[in-house]
Amino acid sequence: MAFNLRLALSAKSASRAFVSVRPTAAFTASRCFHSTPVTMAQHPIATLNEELIPRLPPSSPTLFEAKKKKNISFEAIAKHVGRDEVAIAALFYGQAMASPEDIQKLSEVLDIDAGMLESQLSGFPNRGSTLDMPPKDPTIYRLYEIVQNYGQAYKAVLHEKFGDGIMSAISFSTKIEKETDDKGDWAKITMRGKWLPYSRF
Amino acid sequence: MAFNLRLALSAKSASRAFVSVRPTAAFTASRCFHSTPVTMAQHPIATLNEELIPRLPPSSPTLFEAKKKKNISFEAIAKHVGRDEVAIAALFYGQAMASPEDIQKLSEVLDIDAGMLESQLSGFPNRGSTLDMPPKDPTIYRLYEIVQNYGQAYKAVLHEKFGDGIMSAISFSTKIEKETDDKGDWAKITMRGKWLPYSRF
Amino acid sequence: MAFNLRLALSAKSASRAFVSVRPTAAFTASRCFHSTPVTMAQHPIATLNEELIPRLPPSSPTLFEAKKKKNISFEAIAKHVGRDEVAIAALFYGQAMASPEDIQKLSEVLDIDAGMLESQLSGFPNRGSTLDMPPKDPTIYRLYEIVQNYGQAYKAVLHEKFGDGIMSAISFSTKIEKETDDKGDWAKITMRGKWLPYSRF
Amino acid sequence: MAFNLRLALSAKSASRAFVSVRPTAAFTASRCFHSTPVTMAQHPIATLNEELIPRLPPSSPTLFEAKKKKNISFEAIAKHVGRDEVAIAALFYGQAMASPEDIQKLSEVLDIDAGMLESQLSGFPNRGSTLDMPPKDPTIYRLYEIVQNYGQAYKAVLHEKFGDGIMSAISFSTKIEKETDDKGDWAKITMRGKWLPYSRF
Amino acid sequence: MAFNLRLALSAKSASRAFVSVRPTAAFTASRCFHSTPVTMAQHPIATLNEELIPRLPPSSPTLFEAKKKKNISFEAIAKHVGRDEVAIAALFYGQAMASPEDIQKLSEVLDIDAGMLESQLSGFPNRGSTLDMPPKDPTIYRLYEIVQNYGQAYKAVLHEKFGDGIMSAISFSTKIEKETDDKGDWAKITMRGKWLPYSRF
Amino acid sequence: MAFNLRLALSAKSASRAFVSVRPTAAFTASRCFHSTPVTMAQHPIATLNEELIPRLPPSSPTLFEAKKKKNISFEAIAKHVGRDEVAIAALFYGQAMASPEDIQKLSEVLDIDAGMLESQLSGFPNRGSTLDMPPKDPTIYRLYEIVQNYGQAYKAVLHEKFGDGIMSAISFSTKIEKETDDKGDWAKITMRGKWLPYSRF
Amino acid sequence: MAFNLRLALSAKSASRAFVSVRPTAAFTASRCFHSTPVTMAQHPIATLNEELIPRLPPSSPTLFEAKKKKNISFEAIAKHVGRDEVAIAALFYGQAMASPEDIQKLSEVLDIDAGMLESQLSGFPNRGSTLDMPPKDPTIYRLYEIVQNYGQAYKAVLHEKFGDGIMSAISFSTKIEKETDDKGDWAKITMRGKWLPYSRF
Amino acid sequence: MAFNLRLALSAKSASRAFVSVRPTAAFTASRCFHSTPVTMAQHPIATLNEELIPRLPPSSPTLFEAKKKKNISFEAIAKHVGRDEVAIAALFYGQAMASPEDIQKLSEVLDIDAGMLESQLSGFPNRGSTLDMPPKDPTIYRLYEIVQNYGQAYKAVLHEKFGDGIMSAISFSTKIEKETDDKGDWAKITMRGKWLPYSRF
Amino acid sequence: MAFNLRLALSAKSASRAFVSVRPTAAFTASRCFHSTPVTMAQHPIATLNEELIPRLPPSSPTLFEAKKKKNISFEAIAKHVGRDEVAIAALFYGQAMASPEDIQKLSEVLDIDAGMLESQLSGFPNRGSTLDMPPKDPTIYRLYEIVQNYGQAYKAVLHEKFGDGIMSAISFSTKIEKETDDKGDWAKITMRGKWLPYSRF
Amino acid sequence: MAFNLRLALSAKSASRAFVSVRPTAAFTASRCFHSTPVTMAQHPIATLNEELIPRLPPSSPTLFEAKKKKNISFEAIAKHVGRDEVAIAALFYGQAMASPEDIQKLSEVLDIDAGMLESQLSGFPNRGSTLDMPPKDPTIYRLYEIVQNYGQAYKAVLHEKFGDGIMSAISFSTKIEKETDDKGDWAKITMRGKWLPYSRF
Repeated sequence: MAFNLRLALSAKSASRAFVSVRPTAAFTASRCFHSTPVTMAQHPIATLNEELIPRLPPSSPTLFEAKKKKNISFEAIAKHVGRDEVAIAALFYGQAMASPEDIQKLSEVLDIDAGMLESQLSGFPNRGSTLDMPPKDPTIYRLYEIVQNYGQAYKAVLHEKFGDGIMSAISFSTKIEKETDDKGDWAKITMRGKWLPYSRF
Repeated sequence: MAFNLRLALSAKSASRAFVSVRPTAAFTASRCFHSTPVTMAQHPIATLNEELIPRLPPSSPTLFEAKKKKNISFEAIAKHVGRDEVAIAALFYGQAMASPEDIQKLSEVLDIDAGMLESQLSGFPNRGSTLDMPPKDPTIYRLYEIVQNYGQAYKAVLHEKFGDGIMSAISFSTKIEKETDDKGDWAKITMRGKWLPYSRF
Repeated sequence: MAFNLRLALSAKSASRAFVSVRPTAAFTASRCFHSTPVTMAQHPIATLNEELIPRLPPSSPTLFEAKKKKNISFEAIAKHVGRDEVAIAALFYGQAMASPEDIQKLSEVLDIDAGMLESQLSGFPNRGSTLDMPPKDPTIYRLYEIVQNYGQAYKAVLHEKFGDGIMSAISFSTKIEKETDDKGDWAKITMRGKWLPYSRF
Repeated sequence: MAFNLRLALSAKSASRAFVSVRPTAAFTASRCFHSTPVTMAQHPIATLNEELIPRLPPSSPTLFEAKKKKNISFEAIAKHVGRDEVAIAALFYGQAMASPEDIQKLSEVLDIDAGMLESQLSGFPNRGSTLDMPPKDPTIYRLYEIVQNYGQAYKAVLHEKFGDGIMSAISFSTKIEKETDDKGDWAKITMRGKWLPYSRF
Repeated sequence: MAFNLRLALSAKSASRAFVSVRPTAAFTASRCFHSTPVTMAQHPIATLNEELIPRLPPSSPTLFEAKKKKNISFEAIAKHVGRDEVAIAALFYGQAMASPEDIQKLSEVLDIDAGMLESQLSGFPNRGSTLDMPPKDPTIYRLYEIVQNYGQAYKAVLHEKFGDGIMSAISFSTKIEKETDDKGDWAKITMRGKWLPYSRF
Repeated sequence: MAFNLRLALSAKSASRAFVSVRPTAAFTASRCFHSTPVTMAQHPIATLNEELIPRLPPSSPTLFEAKKKKNISFEAIAKHVGRDEVAIAALFYGQAMASPEDIQKLSEVLDIDAGMLESQLSGFPNRGSTLDMPPKDPTIYRLYEIVQNYGQAYKAVLHEKFGDGIMSAISFSTKIEKETDDKGDWAKITMRGKWLPYSRF
Repeated sequence: MAFNLRLALSAKSASRAFVSVRPTAAFTASRCFHSTPVTMAQHPIATLNEELIPRLPPSSPTLFEAKKKKNISFEAIAKHVGRDEVAIAALFYGQAMASPEDIQKLSEVLDIDAGMLESQLSGFPNRGSTLDMPPKDPTIYRLYEIVQNYGQAYKAVLHEKFGDGIMSAISFSTKIEKETDDKGDWAKITMRGKWLPYSRF
Repeated sequence: MAFNLRLALSAKSASRAFVSVRPTAAFTASRCFHSTPVTMAQHPIATLNEELIPRLPPSSPTLFEAKKKKNISFEAIAKHVGRDEVAIAALFYGQAMASPEDIQKLSEVLDIDAGMLESQLSGFPNRGSTLDMPPKDPTIYRLYEIVQNYGQAYKAVLHEKFGDGIMSAISFSTKIEKETDDKGDWAKITMRGKWLPYSRF
Repeated sequence: MAFNLRLALSAKSASRAFVSVRPTAAFTASRCFHSTPVTMAQHPIATLNEELIPRLPPSSPTLFEAKKKKNISFEAIAKHVGRDEVAIAALFYGQAMASPEDIQKLSEVLDIDAGMLESQLSGFPNRGSTLDMPPKDPTIYRLYEIVQNYGQAYKAVLHEKFGDGIMSAISFSTKIEKETDDKGDWAKITMRGKWLPYSRF
Repeated sequence: MAFNLRLALSAKSASRAFVSVRPTAAFTASRCFHSTPVTMAQHPIATLNEELIPRLPPSSPTLFEAKKKKNISFEAIAKHVGRDEVAIAALFYGQAMASPEDIQKLSEVLDIDAGMLESQLSGFPNRGSTLDMPPKDPTIYRLYEIVQNYGQAYKAVLHEKFGDGIMSAISFSTKIEKETDDKGDWAKITMRGKWLPYSRF
């Protein structure tokens, strides 16, 4: 009967109910079970900020809840699926498309019913919907600030190296690396895109 | 007398007058004199879009006009100054500060009077003023789009790798590289920033 | 009883529930059953991004769910209805009006009760509500960028060809064609509108 | 001496002074001299709305004044340069780059000093600067309205035809055609762009 | 029992449920029963775009559903109530106040319980809430465009005719008329407002 | 020499200088010389708010200064040109195009050199540029408020009268009338536009 | 059982249900029972525009529904509580804080359970949330327009009377009075605030 | 010759030059010459913030410079002209119209040439242009905040007192009074407007 | 059964139901039980403005309701947890991360199930989501106004003291102190951040 | 004669001309002449970003140029004037008022003619005009971010400490301190404002 009543909740509150009924040990686990290779995470894993749900596709709560239950990092999921962890995170937020193989792999690593996942992930992403600009969160704002402050400089140097055109954000890949030296940790973000020259017409 | 009349021009039109009186051979030169190592450029060099002048400091037209007259790329200037070409371009747009040594080197490589350059570059940059957001120029917009589409994914992966905090945009460096394969040219932008964890207070 | 409880869901979550209970094989089917002429699709068919539902009329989830269940492309539906596939897609998003004949045809090809469809489609469209500008999705943004970058040029050439006036967006049709050459695929969008000269008064 | 004093005007007022001192017979000419093939225009030619000058590069007044003096249409210029008239108009508004050959041809057809033109056109365009969005001018607004109303429909049909990706606005061409039937004149705008599928990473 | 469960829906989805359970023959009716004088409509009647409901008062769905069930035009309702059809439509959208007599008449012509209507219509309108500006719908946008393009001209002519002041939008009436000539149909909107001169103080 | 120095003024300050050097007796005149039929005005005539000049074409100060010098109303000019006074005012603000005959008539009635006027008025208007929305001036704001408050009602009634489509703002005319009764003066604005039904495609 | 089902409604629709189940005789009453001193109102009393509920605290529907049921004006409530009617109305909209005594008095005059009222009113107001700026409702817009048009003048006169500083909006009171003369009714709004000079530091 | 050179300045810088060449003793004077009744001011008089000049009519610098030279308060000017000091300040900022008598009085009290003043003040005000909203200056922002926080409360109480309608901001007067008690100074702003009921149509 | 039905409410209305079913004696308590050291508060404690709930994580209503039930101030909670009260308040609004120890302490002092709290607080904060800018609430707006008015001055003095760089808002702490003198109470906000110099690259 | 010609420059370019003709040794000096106590600065002094001039009063370039010529820090000026350095910097940006004594002291320490300074500083500041929000410069943005992220927390703690009210930004002072520990430098900003409780009315 609990199940029937849960159906009466909206999708949004359903996920909340889930959380409060089955609180996962996400934080503690990550501190205690570092030896499990797949789910090992030095830091707590990323979970879904539930206030974002109304602007996300239904696949997002599905995927994030399974991720939380398994206490597994994007890095581990990415390794299993064979894609980059940023691409996997983008897919979780509805910002990237999943191939049938991706869906199969995600279903395996996250223990989600493949049919349900396929149905929820079958559409074409409605990109850009997760974020209002300028971003308010400081972690994302810093990237925005880099574009704002260095945008003209990037444009000038790109043109000098490549001529008139753009670096594609579609024929594009990106990754994040961690580097550590005596001053502390450094995040390194690499963006790599096909250079597209303007057509002459 | 020409000098007196030029004084009667606004600073903005002054640079324009300069241009029309002494048209530099920027484009042609870059096609003809590839053997000159310092000014060699496969593509035309970046010059100043004059409609930007009202939002730039007076150092910007000074620097860009000298750059145009010398037909020299940011890469070549950067090599002389000992900084990255993106940093040099940012400095040209008033987005980065010049040390006294930088000013000396810029004065040398661009044949600008060091005193004048020192005066114009002595202030602290008023960063972010060169660009309205969202950027309208497609080359810069693509970077903005990357932040908009992948922002949440970057945040999630950064947190999993580093915990709660931000990648600094201040204790930060960036560069652009060109890669070529059989599919064409690829632009690679690397952003590297110190990881700053939130203070617990 | 499950049905009664599903009624207790909001219209929005109802469609989500539908999806998870009856996951259609949209993607797989399109890879496996290319021989079925009506539903054949080289690529997965377009389905409804559910986060858009609050800004769409109730006909949109009705139509898109039937389309998903039948795994049928806009092209196939358009052929059956006798309209262009862009017009049909616009109608699905509540951006175009359906004639009684259109409703009859849609009811046939999508197996939707005609009375229900007639009731949901009887109103005059509230156009423009599906999209915030500037568009965040890159596919739509590129069209916006074309207007932004070439708007003045279009205006100038239109005036030279037609005088003072506008190309109507009402007495108007549009279509998308696919062209393929050795460089790859090309999308060709044609917009054709009645020229309206300004009245002299 | 008149020349010296004209130098004392700002670039903006210079063009205005030009206009009032040497009023061209643009409108009359187009009605009277239809036999001259190069400058023939059924409608008055497009000239520069001077209130736009502050957001345009210095090449724009140069080019538009020469165009006005010659009373020549974009179509005629385009034929001479060997490019499309929309591309030529975009170039006039600083939205497209000119090759050295283009500059040579423009110099010929418009009787502008090639060196001056080369200097003014040597930079990389700062695209998008000519237009605030939403566009206020009805002629351009109609194009914006088409994107707003049909954006989602275009996206859906493009995805069904091409999969996940975008139609490039860079590897792109566009043209305007005029069609006439018994209902009047019709403007036909064609946009053709390379299809770019999202990279899988 | 179905009724009880329908109560469990939100007000918004309630109206949707209504629609799907009891689809009215709005469109067909208007084509078939032109002889009925009260409900005769050459075109389908206007119904409520349900995505607007969250920004409307509860009287709006009540009134529009009754209107749809009766398949009656604003013109016919207005004739019964003794007001202009634009005023009646404004009242339906919560943009005008109903007098007790209006409520009585509306109750009669729409078969709505007078007490319920009185309760829902007793408040003072929260005007302007139905529309975001600039309007996205082309029908409304054209009116906005008229204000944008002719606003200064209206102001200048009004001042020449009346002096310094405004045309009241409160002590105000408006109507829409249809005129037909050999070129087709013409809409004529008349706005008539009291001239208010600025007080001298 | 005074003339040469005046050339050194910007176009904007030139008009201001004009005003202060030759103050016209606009207000007084309108009170004293009511017998002159062409320039008679019960209220002071409309002149140019000079802070608007940067967003107007050069024809606007030309036309308004001549109007002020002649102390002539839009009504009188319109009668001479054979157009409506709102159209003439729109033309003065650069919002409407002048035919060669209009230019000839304007030249006559305003004593402006026809060649200069032809040059300044030969371009296609850049419409909408004179006004930011929402309008701040109360006289224009009231029109905006009417659209905001009655927009949905207008749309609904228009659709009931005409079906799906728009009232054209291009194939359009408008006029202002003054009515007086015992309550005072009333302004009556009539807008009349061609009805354009949406094309079915 | 009706009660149980009503619980299943959202808080928002709950209040709507209330309204439709128990329609109060607000308008009629105000016309019929003018002799009752406490609830007498020449005009209908103000009730809650329900579309505002999502931006109001839960106390707002509680208070407004009791006010509607009692058909009592703000003036009458204010007299009972011993505060100004504008302050009471602000309190109803969640824009002012209630003291324990206020709560007691409100509970008495409105027949609301004191404990429930105390719980709902115990927080600190989240001021400003009820209104988007610029206000769309004409009644509120006029106040906004006064600030827009006279803002600089107010500032100048305030500074001349008081020096550099501000009129406090916190140490502040306001009231509305009605004056009637032969021209009709006049509303008089008085705002009185402590003058705060800028600190010198 | 100084005069000729001053002509070469823009109107904007002209006023600045004026200031620096003839610095008035505004502040000192107000402390020293309190015995002169007309120009006495307890606080320094209000002068023109010169950065506002581009958005003001040419009459504003004319009037404010004369006011500064005479070191006279708005109160004193108002007394001479016979209007309220807020109205006079509004007139100085181009927000109110001057009658011929006002112009005569202003000319007298400010020692400005009447013809010049008449020419500069003859137009109809372009109201609202002096201020961007929300206001940034704290003195004006507090008034805006009062509207934002108390707007709904004002509306509710106005409707209860007057019915459906608005307080006119045109048939309107306002004043500022200073009150002092043992807690300090209090500013009292009174706004009084004609009540306009909505027309029933 | 009441519990089951409450589950059928959305998360938002659930918290509201909670409030109305179990009204806490927050205000009274704070006046009556000042002797209890942990929950003592001179002023009513801060509770959650429920209209904020949709933009807050599920932990916020959980924490605030427990706080209200215990009638405990942030200061008291902070003392127990060993953090600053501003940090604790930020944590309640989802703007700061909780360590496992924080969660344990919060669970103790607020009598919340530790597992549930851990689940709700395990994610990384989505910072900045609680507030739209500019802030409408006067208490927060004053801080915004300080940044707006003193921003350039802060920047200038910071640069003179530290060189080119920023004060970190991440490696940062802040506190609020209360000071009282004969003029009344003073709030003192201290912000202390690591100085980050720009990297030279 | 050079002086006369310089007058022909706009105020804006005048300051630029100044700079280029007499480049001050600001940077070098600060490194070389640390022994001069008044002008000693560990870091280069703050100068005026000239692109800000159009939004600043004429006193700003006057003050900043004198500051640059003297190579003197705000700290040193503040010490001489007897105010805080943030207040002095605010005064330089036109954000604070100068008393006659301040003007006298500034004239002394900066070697500016007292009469000219008095004239330029005699007006009431137009506060807030120097900065667009959100601030683009990272140094100022961090302060904005603190308000955005901690705004609700500040409000909650302030209310618990002081009750309902605000911290004044007018009866207010602020300062910046530098602290150094083994981790580096820390900036400490203190804001102290009078607590203003809401009036009960």
